[in-house]
Amino acid sequence: MTTSAPERLRYTYMSCFSPGALQASWNHPQSTGFDYLNLDSWVKLAQALEDANFDAFFWADHLGVHDIFRSSYEDAVRNAMQYPVADPMILAATLAASTTNLGFAFSANVIQDHPYVFARRLSTLDHLTRGRIAWNIVTSFQPSAWRNLGHSQMRSHDSRYEQADEYVQVLYKLLEGSWEDDAVVRDLEKAVYADPGKVHPIEHEGQYYKVPGIQTVEPSPQRMPVLFQAGTSTAGREFAANNAEAIFMLPMDPAGARRTIDGIRAQFVECGRRASDALFFVSESVIVGSTEEEAKRKLEEFRAYRHEDFDLIFASSNFGFDLSVVDPDTPIADLEFNAVQGQIRAFADSAPDKNLTLRDMAATLSANLLTVGTPEQIADKFEAWQAAGVNGINLASVGGYLDVYDFIEHVVPVLKKRGLMQKEYAPGTLREKLFAGTESPSGPRLNDRHPVSKFRKDSTVPA
Amino acid sequence: MTTSAPERLRYTYMSCFSPGALQASWNHPQSTGFDYLNLDSWVKLAQALEDANFDAFFWADHLGVHDIFRSSYEDAVRNAMQYPVADPMILAATLAASTTNLGFAFSANVIQDHPYVFARRLSTLDHLTRGRIAWNIVTSFQPSAWRNLGHSQMRSHDSRYEQADEYVQVLYKLLEGSWEDDAVVRDLEKAVYADPGKVHPIEHEGQYYKVPGIQTVEPSPQRMPVLFQAGTSTAGREFAANNAEAIFMLPMDPAGARRTIDGIRAQFVECGRRASDALFFVSESVIVGSTEEEAKRKLEEFRAYRHEDFDLIFASSNFGFDLSVVDPDTPIADLEFNAVQGQIRAFADSAPDKNLTLRDMAATLSANLLTVGTPEQIADKFEAWQAAGVNGINLASVGGYLDVYDFIEHVVPVLKKRGLMQKEYAPGTLREKLFAGTESPSGPRLNDRHPVSKFRKDSTVPA
Repeated sequence: MTTSAPERLRYTYMSCFSPGALQASWNHPQSTGFDYLNLDSWVKLAQALEDANFDAFFWADHLGVHDIFRSSYEDAVRNAMQYPVADPMILAATLAASTTNLGFAFSANVIQDHPYVFARRLSTLDHLTRGRIAWNIVTSFQPSAWRNLGHSQMRSHDSRYEQADEYVQVLYKLLEGSWEDDAVVRDLEKAVYADPGKVHPIEHEGQYYKVPGIQTVEPSPQRMPVLFQAGTSTAGREFAANNAEAIFMLPMDPAGARRTIDGIRAQFVECGRRASDALFFVSESVIVGSTEEEAKRKLEEFRAYRHEDFDLIFASSNFGFDLSVVDPDTPIADLEFNAVQGQIRAFADSAPDKNLTLRDMAATLSANLLTVGTPEQIADKFEAWQAAGVNGINLASVGGYLDVYDFIEHVVPVLKKRGLMQKEYAPGTLREKLFAGTESPSGPRLNDRHPVSKFRKDSTVPA
Repeated sequence: MTTSAPERLRYTYMSCFSPGALQASWNHPQSTGFDYLNLDSWVKLAQALEDANFDAFFWADHLGVHDIFRSSYEDAVRNAMQYPVADPMILAATLAASTTNLGFAFSANVIQDHPYVFARRLSTLDHLTRGRIAWNIVTSFQPSAWRNLGHSQMRSHDSRYEQADEYVQVLYKLLEGSWEDDAVVRDLEKAVYADPGKVHPIEHEGQYYKVPGIQTVEPSPQRMPVLFQAGTSTAGREFAANNAEAIFMLPMDPAGARRTIDGIRAQFVECGRRASDALFFVSESVIVGSTEEEAKRKLEEFRAYRHEDFDLIFASSNFGFDLSVVDPDTPIADLEFNAVQGQIRAFADSAPDKNLTLRDMAATLSANLLTVGTPEQIADKFEAWQAAGVNGINLASVGGYLDVYDFIEHVVPVLKKRGLMQKEYAPGTLREKLFAGTESPSGPRLNDRHPVSKFRKDSTVPA
């Protein structure tokens, strides 16, 4: 037991490279979502996040369209529900030169790029940002993404994790195993740029990938960018314990957060890692007002602009079944299911209160944890997360792109005053910044307790 | 026949995202190639190119390593021969915010990204640069690239073009066919971002790709970025006539350039396009001195730092056969070939002078057209290209990254004075800028004579 003050909370700001960002609120008068293709707006926002000492800008991403609800993409397209959606890796790159300390995190699913190509892309990004990149590892849950990449059908949940396992293994081999630490010599006199004896073919031959050769790019500051992950299924937790450094979570309350955190930290230890090798970020949406009443008024405004079926469309896409086949406004206790609706029944059965409707349940998925209140109330909530062992807040965009400016202006000063947010950046790469002050302080690279270490030919990385 | 002055020459600056750029000259004292991962250097160079009114920054690229010569990647790695090589799409993105008019062109081979993914990437880049992107369509000639993407062997030259044909067709359908011109509505009152009735699934089902769905990103300023291509084989020319807008060439002399240009322009007309729909860029390497003697001294210096086998390694990789199996310094007339050396014999047979060696022949491939002289001599050479119908110069990096500053300081003023280089940018997207003042002035999009037009649902693009 430690009696010292709990360490600071970290902050990522989560958006989506889409007109309505995460919440499809592109038409809210203050959202400016229609401006999402204007680079100047992103530069301004990235600099504002950096001025406020956010740890990272994070873009959720997906390659398909939400077309499960009513078997149609029409609502998604009409209401810009996380669609259209542009490439966040390109966006991150465009912001590199106008920022210095801000990290850039993005989701990229393992079916999008071949790992040999993705390894080059990650390394290039990490080089040009001087080690400010994080990758949120995702497996695509959208059948439309799979179909458009030529697959006749989406793989099952567990075999998607199996593929992801092999995918990250190829990346470990390329980014950590191929070039030894002292392979790059740059000896001008002897005209030796790199010592080919220290650059190794990875000779990977697996179930999903065959990659015999050497990595295309020399090692970047972090080599493997910081690894985020979000799954909390059994397969997801095991994957996290073996790979992730930071975990996004959506707990119901601090007690639930504590249980999940303790459980996953124990799994880290079982994998030979330290409990402190994991950082937990709670995804929170915030609506702030100078009084509680103002905040509630803003919430009503926000709701008025939101498509009534957004939550159902998003939940249908996430669960892979069409919630339109039953009346979503009937209390769950009164719903009648037929034989083919087993998955919806399971979803309904998980409701804590049978007076809730399917629509209510769906709302909890897409709105993350919505906190509405004054800056002090929001800080209280974050403090409660912190007390439960949470390491960071993943601030999820609500009303397009302007809500974060409110947060920066009104909430950030309160958080800093209370010691809940850093007042300056720690030195070094994103990994060093994120783990500074923890019981697992880190160098620029994944530590040697991480399973990556078995792919290293030699290593100067401390355990 | 026109009696007016020939139109201006266009300029692309060709580099490679690698320590030694194109010519493996990373260890030349002035090359600063070791600095290639420093974003500040690239920003400075891009701004210098823009200040000098270059049309575009262009990165040649490849996904493999030059490992055909002596069946080894050792020389390539040791001497940084276009290796390591980072991702130029990411680099282009990092330069978007610090430039306004400069175009960004890059090679991307059709086996690197699935076309559904690449369409999103291209569109994102074109949006964030406000229409300044060009794509040099290439098929990968390196067996190592194919192997690392899981293919047991490289496809044949002609079937690579067949795949490229289908690849660009998928891109045409996604970027030009899926979203109609007025699909994006952004009606705040009615809460309609886009009209789903005007967003169409492309339903592509071909030999190499199956892409049933809709394009992920709404149309960018150019929709399909400007299309460059470099092949001059029979399959390459046919592909160019059907797809390209700008063609890189390596003619032996102005008369040869004229023949090639006339031939390809005739093929454009056969494809229903105008002869003026094609722009021809000659790839030129330049070493400039204030006197002829100084320029020649710089050439000797450059040669002294260059690996003696670079040309052979590069030529082996390009032709897909190992030039190390015979003595490359024997005059071609004295070479003795055995039965398995048929391809080398064909290469040797193409020599204009039988006293040349294989090494000499290889040098012509990798050095592009090397012009060594005073600014006036270089301008004379460019003027001769212009008189032969050439539309632009693709200035190929020689000595790392510093040679272009010499060119900007000493040659650009002479070119501008003689009307051989623009003094300001034309307005609009890269496509509009490139075609300004030609007999095929262009809007932001591919014109309706281009085969893309058959994939457009409707069109407001003039023919």
